Amino acid sequence: MLQSLMQDVPLTLNLVRERVAFLYADKTVTTRTAAGIETASYQRLLERSARLADALRRLGVQPGDRVATLAWNSQRHLELYLAVPCMGAVLHTINARLSGEAVAALLGHAGDRILFLEASLLSVLQTARLPAAVHHVVVISSEPGDGPDGGMADQLPGVTVIDYEALLGAAPSEFAWPELDERMPSGLCYTSGTTGTPKGVLYSHRSATLHTLACLFADGIAMRERDVCMPVVPMFHASAWGFPYAALMAGAALALPCRQTDWESLAALIEAGGVTMATAVPTVWLEFLEALKTGRIARQRIKSLTRIPMGGAAVTKALIDGFADFGIEVTHCWGMTEISPLGLVNVRTSALSEAEAAAARSAQGLPIPGCALRIMSPDGREAPRDGATPGELQIRSPWAADAYFDAGAPGNRSTEPGAVEAFVGDGRGRRWLRTGDVATIDRHGYVRIVDRTKDLIKSGGEWISSQALEAKLLEHPDVREAAVVARVDPKWQERPVAFVTLGSAAAAAGQDRLIGDLRRSLAAVFAKWQLPDAFIVLAELPKGSTGKIDKIALRAQLRAGPAASA
Amino acid sequence: MLQSLMQDVPLTLNLVRERVAFLYADKTVTTRTAAGIETASYQRLLERSARLADALRRLGVQPGDRVATLAWNSQRHLELYLAVPCMGAVLHTINARLSGEAVAALLGHAGDRILFLEASLLSVLQTARLPAAVHHVVVISSEPGDGPDGGMADQLPGVTVIDYEALLGAAPSEFAWPELDERMPSGLCYTSGTTGTPKGVLYSHRSATLHTLACLFADGIAMRERDVCMPVVPMFHASAWGFPYAALMAGAALALPCRQTDWESLAALIEAGGVTMATAVPTVWLEFLEALKTGRIARQRIKSLTRIPMGGAAVTKALIDGFADFGIEVTHCWGMTEISPLGLVNVRTSALSEAEAAAARSAQGLPIPGCALRIMSPDGREAPRDGATPGELQIRSPWAADAYFDAGAPGNRSTEPGAVEAFVGDGRGRRWLRTGDVATIDRHGYVRIVDRTKDLIKSGGEWISSQALEAKLLEHPDVREAAVVARVDPKWQERPVAFVTLGSAAAAAGQDRLIGDLRRSLAAVFAKWQLPDAFIVLAELPKGSTGKIDKIALRAQLRAGPAASA
Repeated sequence: MLQSLMQDVPLTLNLVRERVAFLYADKTVTTRTAAGIETASYQRLLERSARLADALRRLGVQPGDRVATLAWNSQRHLELYLAVPCMGAVLHTINARLSGEAVAALLGHAGDRILFLEASLLSVLQTARLPAAVHHVVVISSEPGDGPDGGMADQLPGVTVIDYEALLGAAPSEFAWPELDERMPSGLCYTSGTTGTPKGVLYSHRSATLHTLACLFADGIAMRERDVCMPVVPMFHASAWGFPYAALMAGAALALPCRQTDWESLAALIEAGGVTMATAVPTVWLEFLEALKTGRIARQRIKSLTRIPMGGAAVTKALIDGFADFGIEVTHCWGMTEISPLGLVNVRTSALSEAEAAAARSAQGLPIPGCALRIMSPDGREAPRDGATPGELQIRSPWAADAYFDAGAPGNRSTEPGAVEAFVGDGRGRRWLRTGDVATIDRHGYVRIVDRTKDLIKSGGEWISSQALEAKLLEHPDVREAAVVARVDPKWQERPVAFVTLGSAAAAAGQDRLIGDLRRSLAAVFAKWQLPDAFIVLAELPKGSTGKIDKIALRAQLRAGPAASA
Repeated sequence: MLQSLMQDVPLTLNLVRERVAFLYADKTVTTRTAAGIETASYQRLLERSARLADALRRLGVQPGDRVATLAWNSQRHLELYLAVPCMGAVLHTINARLSGEAVAALLGHAGDRILFLEASLLSVLQTARLPAAVHHVVVISSEPGDGPDGGMADQLPGVTVIDYEALLGAAPSEFAWPELDERMPSGLCYTSGTTGTPKGVLYSHRSATLHTLACLFADGIAMRERDVCMPVVPMFHASAWGFPYAALMAGAALALPCRQTDWESLAALIEAGGVTMATAVPTVWLEFLEALKTGRIARQRIKSLTRIPMGGAAVTKALIDGFADFGIEVTHCWGMTEISPLGLVNVRTSALSEAEAAAARSAQGLPIPGCALRIMSPDGREAPRDGATPGELQIRSPWAADAYFDAGAPGNRSTEPGAVEAFVGDGRGRRWLRTGDVATIDRHGYVRIVDRTKDLIKSGGEWISSQALEAKLLEHPDVREAAVVARVDPKWQERPVAFVTLGSAAAAAGQDRLIGDLRRSLAAVFAKWQLPDAFIVLAELPKGSTGKIDKIALRAQLRAGPAASA
């Protein structure tokens, strides 16, 4: 057999770090902190990352060791993004909105050695018992010099508490970055699943680097050097959709909002940083769009903003059209923690007519190059490409997971039944990730997510799509949020119940009439047996730690008591 | 050590083939043949590729076997691009402009088993003795059914001659494509070096796939689904710059000009195919631009054409500006067979002022993501980034070669001294390709090729850049082509001599005055010792097999006789 004669250059995040050093030392990262707006050059970012890597080595961090962060979107978190994987360790980003108990559980499951956390989150930990393996806690403070006091060290017994700036200050600005194998893990992120064993996704250098390159494709996210990218989606959530790495690779500047995701803070950062593209989940943009529409944000202030790749939840036509009115292009994307996370991007295919293109915009999109998919019907066959037949979306890609992480299991591969079944083989020796999303695909390849497999409502042997009902409810101008969940039914097994929040006090006052309207509008497009049995108006819908509507809480509410409305 | 838990999806050209099947079956490849314009859907392309792969297997082709082509840019050549590597064999594209003897030498060196060739090139082979390993010759005819006659088989003794269409016709349209390792070789291309041992570059599936993805970057070639790509650069030359694979991956349509690269044929194909982007070497575009300027091509006919990534030789400002006048953007690129071939693309960096941007346009460009470079001074240090100090351009990339191919050597890695020295290590365990190009780099990262190391003129212990002199000569409106080469000199070792061709008969009539003009214009920017000793006007400059000016022939001419002009 012939040998390969091409250079054996491993696909590692060092390619990102080295490219920044070579070409983009003068570009900047801007962070909006409580104290104001801080800007640093990438040159400084790299120097500080080198200091950090050196400090980690001196703290005993070995290749493959997990280093945890509990932090917002900031320059210092970005320094960890570079230093930890590029020195051979694994960056474990923990959801900063979790309770101390949940954080401690993840620290224990991941086997973290060191935890970096924002000073403002120290109090979260004080109620929890940190695992014994965590020997150092490094405190990141928004204001330089505002390190931890002696009292805090007392509150975290058995752990050495260090100030981040003191740690860096003691280290040299040069570091001998090691050569890494591309199959080495680079990052660890747990899904936001609220039940069962924690599901950790262990990214490799190879997967992270290929995902980074995929964010540069012209038909896709199309990150460019001229861009100023503002990832609002948290850096603890699937690497902020991989955008920090993509921005660094492309040479785009970064603007990081820390924890401030209210419209006023975002508008200020867009204005200060000249942001051209930004990412966040739809709920953030819903508020932002309302501020734009009502003139609380002047378009002139945010004139640099031209495009928003949006995902994390279904993006409504109203949101797309609303931003289009201001000359801002919303591109629907879809992904999940298990695929690094980008899988689908809604780019317009040249074969579409104007009418088809308008209809296609609210689909989640087409698979990006490097990402293959199939839609599997319950009968084990691929669903026809008719845009109507639902099946489970399954993904095959070098940046898709093939197992969940368990430090204690053979090959650190989780053997929990619930974790194993997410990954399947086909008859041809290929592996597929079961996404748990139910989708359709049309003849042009556009994929539309119609539900989560677990959110489908099984009524009398038929499936009812909660998301299809929700999308219709959201078309009503007075409906702000909608969630349809299953109520256990003795006759039909499950029956749908709709929860909504309203956009105005006036709407709330005319609630009964509104519910009548909603019932009629659903009846116009759905079969009678698919209509919700009840409509419940709430002031607020319960949300999970990533801001998504918590359907488990809604189902619990239904089990606890009778519906508040007919 | 932790194990990788991400899917082990190999980076092979099957990702390209499968993506086309999944999303782009309705897109088309259009070929301009002698008989007219033929269009086929990618669906048909894939079906025919499957038939071809099956036929190859039945002809005994094993994984790693070399399958040679001697063919122009056509749909059938594209079928070979898919079938040969995706069934596990190696596509060896041979320069169709070589002599029969040279073709036979490459067939022998590569150890090819089968040769596919255009019927029109059969006569080339009749003067040569094919190596014994070649057991089948498959003849591709532009007109279906116009297969080889019995007489041809007689003229190629010891070889079975088959018609391409007959071969496909006998095969099923389904093929069980094997799973391939990404380190397996996919292609083989010999550089156009005119001396010494043949230098074969053995591409791997990994290198070809990563190069394909790199052609999709927004800051770069930016291949998109909406594009219609016309690779004019031959498909036997570094995979036509990788554009056929990139177009297929992106879902762009393809328009292939066969061997017709005259302006009229290209204009007709652009018009028929709605071509949006096209690639060729500058000499092709020089003629095309003249036809545009003189109205022989109406802009309206080629209105779909918006951009031309151009490389293969230095692109002049006149060519860039000339196309810009017609609203067509020329992007300067640089590459070589050894790097698949793309390394540099001239994209505008946001830090440039208007004046800097205008000056930067004629530079070869910035390294594309995934491609690292260094400029090495003769003293073994990296040249400063001053845009002035020359050094050898060296490349590190997963799509750069690390050795030349020799089927008979250990690990099929050439051990010829001349072939080994092109690849070097640094002190850090990394490998670099020595490009043989002399370049400068400025503070923004723009690389400017100033010469080939072997074309530098060593005069009195100093270097004189032939390309710098040529670029200045080409600024004169009457100069059509220019080449400066070294003449052996007893005192100074070497001295420069300039060869030019003129743009008009009138200029030729005033030849002496013109030479005076050229001498003065060079004297205004170069030191006296850098000026050519002589200026020689020729009707035509000698060209090599890839259309580049043959400086070896010019040097031979200088050795043979005294300069024709002072």
